[in-house]
Amino acid sequence: MARNQLRTAVIIAVGSELLTPERVDTNSLFLTDALNELGVQLRYKVVVGDARDDIGAALLAAAAQADIVVVTGGLGPTDDDVTREAVATACGMPLQEDADVAAAIRSRFAARGLAMPAINRRQALVPRGATVLPNPDGSAPGLWIERPEMVCIVLPGPPRELRGMFEAVARTRLAAACGRQGIFRRVLRVTGRPESYVDEVASPVYSRWLSAAVPISTSVLATRGEVELHLSARAATREDADGALDAATSELAAVLGTDLVSSDGAALEEVVGRLLRAQGRRVAVAESCTGGLIASRLTDVPGSSEYVHAGWVAYHNEAKTALLGVDARLIEDHGAVSEPVARALADGCRMRAGTDYGLGVTGIAGPGGGSSDKPVGTVYVALAGPGGRLRVRRLNLPGDRERVKHFASQAALDLLRRTLLE
Amino acid sequence: MARNQLRTAVIIAVGSELLTPERVDTNSLFLTDALNELGVQLRYKVVVGDARDDIGAALLAAAAQADIVVVTGGLGPTDDDVTREAVATACGMPLQEDADVAAAIRSRFAARGLAMPAINRRQALVPRGATVLPNPDGSAPGLWIERPEMVCIVLPGPPRELRGMFEAVARTRLAAACGRQGIFRRVLRVTGRPESYVDEVASPVYSRWLSAAVPISTSVLATRGEVELHLSARAATREDADGALDAATSELAAVLGTDLVSSDGAALEEVVGRLLRAQGRRVAVAESCTGGLIASRLTDVPGSSEYVHAGWVAYHNEAKTALLGVDARLIEDHGAVSEPVARALADGCRMRAGTDYGLGVTGIAGPGGGSSDKPVGTVYVALAGPGGRLRVRRLNLPGDRERVKHFASQAALDLLRRTLLE
Repeated sequence: MARNQLRTAVIIAVGSELLTPERVDTNSLFLTDALNELGVQLRYKVVVGDARDDIGAALLAAAAQADIVVVTGGLGPTDDDVTREAVATACGMPLQEDADVAAAIRSRFAARGLAMPAINRRQALVPRGATVLPNPDGSAPGLWIERPEMVCIVLPGPPRELRGMFEAVARTRLAAACGRQGIFRRVLRVTGRPESYVDEVASPVYSRWLSAAVPISTSVLATRGEVELHLSARAATREDADGALDAATSELAAVLGTDLVSSDGAALEEVVGRLLRAQGRRVAVAESCTGGLIASRLTDVPGSSEYVHAGWVAYHNEAKTALLGVDARLIEDHGAVSEPVARALADGCRMRAGTDYGLGVTGIAGPGGGSSDKPVGTVYVALAGPGGRLRVRRLNLPGDRERVKHFASQAALDLLRRTLLE
Repeated sequence: MARNQLRTAVIIAVGSELLTPERVDTNSLFLTDALNELGVQLRYKVVVGDARDDIGAALLAAAAQADIVVVTGGLGPTDDDVTREAVATACGMPLQEDADVAAAIRSRFAARGLAMPAINRRQALVPRGATVLPNPDGSAPGLWIERPEMVCIVLPGPPRELRGMFEAVARTRLAAACGRQGIFRRVLRVTGRPESYVDEVASPVYSRWLSAAVPISTSVLATRGEVELHLSARAATREDADGALDAATSELAAVLGTDLVSSDGAALEEVVGRLLRAQGRRVAVAESCTGGLIASRLTDVPGSSEYVHAGWVAYHNEAKTALLGVDARLIEDHGAVSEPVARALADGCRMRAGTDYGLGVTGIAGPGGGSSDKPVGTVYVALAGPGGRLRVRRLNLPGDRERVKHFASQAALDLLRRTLLE
């Protein structure tokens, strides 16, 4: 097998917790994307428990069917982390302690003022002949093993460590060993429309791309309060792919209009942040039913301190009055979940914070508190803007408490985004 | 193999879409739970594409390693649905049209006033000797195949159809064929300690349970800012399992002390909520670097309006002073990220909200804003309590912005939890 023509891969996720009803392996999604970009197709994927024999059997079976075998997880320090042993046995490469790895782990603990626990020493065991992949984010090193029948890459299970190691070292090594036709993806995000509407509008556009010079396949996915369009271009270089994807994105943008949130995968809160920054505007938030979620999403974005001034979580009616000056009579007359109260929240936080915009949200997240008039999921979202201009939306949101909170935050951020676009 | 002693299973999910970066197989989670309840352990699980050879190879490999093989998906009417053919070939049971199945599919279409499309006729093909499992929710029938080496169950891919068919017919058949020992789970959550510490303390306790009358196996999992202990008891009845799990939980609680957050899987914010409610206490929050995340987590819990009074997101220094009365000189002298400012935030929100407790958090979430003295990840968490008592913790948190926010919220909620426990 020529090393520059690795074409197929198998992913083996190790971890008994991944064989319970509670956990699902998600590392393989990241890895599939990364492998596809390098032109490598996933043949199959498998999840095995922390059992030496099962890991070894899966590795040998995979080696017979694919050029690359990626094994994830089971590299921790405890007794049930047996991936190192299993891989060493299956590959016939006995384990030996690697002095450099041991030193790196020791200094990692020392940096936090700790002595290395004895059990972490196991993490310094390396199959003889394997290349160690350094772990920028944790103590478990990865492994790169070249065998006549395959390349075996062993990566740590924690998603952050796995990604960090892949980006830092594995991707470049793989790129050198793989063919050049890659699959390049782009994600477009759409808000405020159901999946069927988006597909109806977009499919006449994207269905033409399958037979283009740089073919692009498209899939439409509904996620929480958003619809995503995933575009996959197959091309020899990233430049070729980018050219085709740019043109494709423009075509879709024309039919989607302001429903299109981003074409670079950016989240709604990030797009709102870009608009606020570009326009030199600042925002404040007064939240009842979302309980701080909108402020938290806005401040998830690095640099958000430039445009997020302040937020209030006015959960109690008293707090609405005391903190944000919502007239107690408004609450009495219309109820805490009402259009006037949402307006007063938006206006109150804008005035008190001295910002350009103020978002106010009040609603019934459930499971209690609903009525026939205002069932669980009733939410009012208000935006106060320059010159005291006010906009309000009434929403009837489906789902449980967590979903109502999320959808309400989504609607509030989208109201701000659309207003900033005008 | 005695048919009433089926003990191990493999799940094979079929579908090329499950080998893309966008989709994950979740049917196996439902099936794992159902199999575990029947005393069946999942040996491993695998995802293969819509390729006859791959499905067949996976089936034969699974049959060599488990008593039950569950195959899901690929039973639709289109050309790329090849599970029927693959299973028939692998089991050496030629396909033949089943008149009853064909009639059922035809009448399903007739009920909607439609003629059966020609392609749906493929769904009436059944391996000779297989038992047809009726589909209450769709046109694709399932299959039950008994072979000397295994039982093979073939179920449709759409989750609703799979669940409907499992509950309607497969569960009872499996229960008759399986032993009666079930697997029952419990999750314990621990905060404030690394995985290695928890394992060192807990393993002398849990290692004894493997050989107990009701054997319990334990695995230790580090998640974001928490460590989970997963206990799995094997017992004839839920009562037997619960008795053993209760005793086991008590033993672990004794060695873990207040590091144990919950033994029923409850999240930290839920446990904090229970303690506040039980003690009739209320809390307010003043957040800088966590940006509303603590308030949002607290209000994720149904009924939290009873004890969460108000929250402030004081992102700007001006906001800290104007909203919460933090003395501007404190910020000038010590910096916004400092112990005195954290104290002033905690005290300020407690006084203004008139609550029993006030949590104040200030820190550097990054990626910018760090210094050699106070690098990214430096966070001060303060709790003001009854009588003005104040507690502060300085944290040096690893990771990116999102992780710093999460860990800081974790530390703040845990500080409140431990204080409420005293």
